[in-house]
Amino acid sequence: MGCSDEHASLAADVLLQADLRGIDSHGVARLIGYVRLWESKRINTNPKITIVHETPTTATVDGDAGLGLVVAPFAMRLAIQKAGQYGSGWVSVRNSNHFGIAGYHSLLAVEKEMIGIAMTNASPLVAPTYSNERLLGTNPMCYAFPAGKYPPVVVDMATSAAANGKLEIAQRAGKPVPEGWIQDAKGNYTTDPHALKSGGSLLPLGSDKEHGSHKGFGLSAVVDIFSAVLSGANYGPWVPPFVAFLQPPADPVGLGIGHFVGAMRVDGFRPVDEFKIHMDNWIGRFKSASTIDPDQKVIIPGEPELEAAKERKTKGIPLVDAVVADLNGLAKRFGIEEL
Amino acid sequence: MGCSDEHASLAADVLLQADLRGIDSHGVARLIGYVRLWESKRINTNPKITIVHETPTTATVDGDAGLGLVVAPFAMRLAIQKAGQYGSGWVSVRNSNHFGIAGYHSLLAVEKEMIGIAMTNASPLVAPTYSNERLLGTNPMCYAFPAGKYPPVVVDMATSAAANGKLEIAQRAGKPVPEGWIQDAKGNYTTDPHALKSGGSLLPLGSDKEHGSHKGFGLSAVVDIFSAVLSGANYGPWVPPFVAFLQPPADPVGLGIGHFVGAMRVDGFRPVDEFKIHMDNWIGRFKSASTIDPDQKVIIPGEPELEAAKERKTKGIPLVDAVVADLNGLAKRFGIEEL
Repeated sequence: MGCSDEHASLAADVLLQADLRGIDSHGVARLIGYVRLWESKRINTNPKITIVHETPTTATVDGDAGLGLVVAPFAMRLAIQKAGQYGSGWVSVRNSNHFGIAGYHSLLAVEKEMIGIAMTNASPLVAPTYSNERLLGTNPMCYAFPAGKYPPVVVDMATSAAANGKLEIAQRAGKPVPEGWIQDAKGNYTTDPHALKSGGSLLPLGSDKEHGSHKGFGLSAVVDIFSAVLSGANYGPWVPPFVAFLQPPADPVGLGIGHFVGAMRVDGFRPVDEFKIHMDNWIGRFKSASTIDPDQKVIIPGEPELEAAKERKTKGIPLVDAVVADLNGLAKRFGIEEL
Repeated sequence: MGCSDEHASLAADVLLQADLRGIDSHGVARLIGYVRLWESKRINTNPKITIVHETPTTATVDGDAGLGLVVAPFAMRLAIQKAGQYGSGWVSVRNSNHFGIAGYHSLLAVEKEMIGIAMTNASPLVAPTYSNERLLGTNPMCYAFPAGKYPPVVVDMATSAAANGKLEIAQRAGKPVPEGWIQDAKGNYTTDPHALKSGGSLLPLGSDKEHGSHKGFGLSAVVDIFSAVLSGANYGPWVPPFVAFLQPPADPVGLGIGHFVGAMRVDGFRPVDEFKIHMDNWIGRFKSASTIDPDQKVIIPGEPELEAAKERKTKGIPLVDAVVADLNGLAKRFGIEEL
């Protein structure tokens, strides 16, 4: 597509880490979508990523419509550099595109004995509490903490009740979804996984007001404001769609989509060894929690992804037929050997 | 109780702002609890609050077992000072006590054209997903953003499905609570508001795995790690109880309870005027969202508290009889005029 070798290899790494960690919806399956956005001239494969505003520990980066897969690591490296010098670093990003899994970017900080934070806004699919209008993305937030003998704790979550990827699985399988994931155009719960096509919307984490959907809405708002209102990207219903067949709104309020990343040095607060001892104690205590079902232990955030990675590193990454067909189509088109 | 005039007046301000903003569970109703903790020598009314570790933009503060109501503003002022100089400031706090409403502390930053963040861990009442053990507090997190013509957006939320205050209201009224708020000792949903007395627990935001309770657990973990693992406070089940009649665990892993606060200068990312224009546009768009029920508009986070404050500033703050009796008992005891 014209990416530099450095960008191509970084983008490939982000996608492969998603597949390796079991987050198939964010791995190579997305490649064809990026190519289509590039064809529609909505992704710039040779971006000049620039810092447009800066203090010692904050910055705003313009991604020049590049792949989020390369723009977000640029921003996170800047945050890490600032944190190395001053204790913490925070970078908001405008004019970017889909950045893959948030965990990838947060974990760049963890490698440096820092706490990593990454979030992004996304195409509007989620309705705020009391509304039937799609005004927010599934807006994920991720917090990653280094530990000692245990792997890092990585909280990486959509702020909607269900991530879009889970909905897509139900759509492909033609299976109903649980009540509380989506509503129809009138705002009634529905179990039809295709309800979004007829004006329905995803629900915020909490599902309904009584169970705290205003909190899920609030978290999603936090992600949207940090990522876009702060950076000068599009927010709310103005976020451009991730799919090439849908046009971006004609009245943008900013540039592209937005991200927000941060890094804090653990030793800005406490010696790293001490922190890790207590992280291990925290993890150990939660792992040994009394459980409702003896066969289902408490899961530490980040653990399932790590177990998937361990298994897939030896057994390989399973790909569904449709993804293989897409990849082979791309291979043919770009003159690369097919799978 | 021996607080300095400055501390007494600051603590009173935090409590009054809670009552004014309609968060009655965190206002003067709590005064008697603080007095009882002081009688049990678990609150130090004359603390020497110190900075025990520091970089240009990070610090750890020891609250010397003081009232969280005075320790947290100390930490937030430090964060604001660092942000003023370097763009952002982050302070973790150990050896503290209950800090009142998180919104109070975040809004200190908003006054300075900064984004304010405040969180705290709390006495264990919440079980992680798959567990029937109370290992986490309702661990609130708060994000406050300045706006222009509109009031600030303040997302201030417990990371449990329901805040403890809401449960207490149901307990006093003897009314069942919705399914999804609490589970009994065996891990089954229950609507009995008193189930916590017989080994039950509050549920994380999301209520069950299918609806994302692992996300509520993850958010609560984030608050616990930032507030306590990072600062050297007690975390998880080791957090000391807020009530004097329950003893703290005999094997503490840190000092007191922990908080985490932060401030980021808006103009570290974007000119303040520009940011406020887009915040107003964001708020205006969400306020005018299409709604399911024509009589129920979308609520912007922070709006209900502001409306309560407006009403209570003119009509006064209603107090339930039990709170008046408590306050009059304290007045008699400390030789102050009764209400």
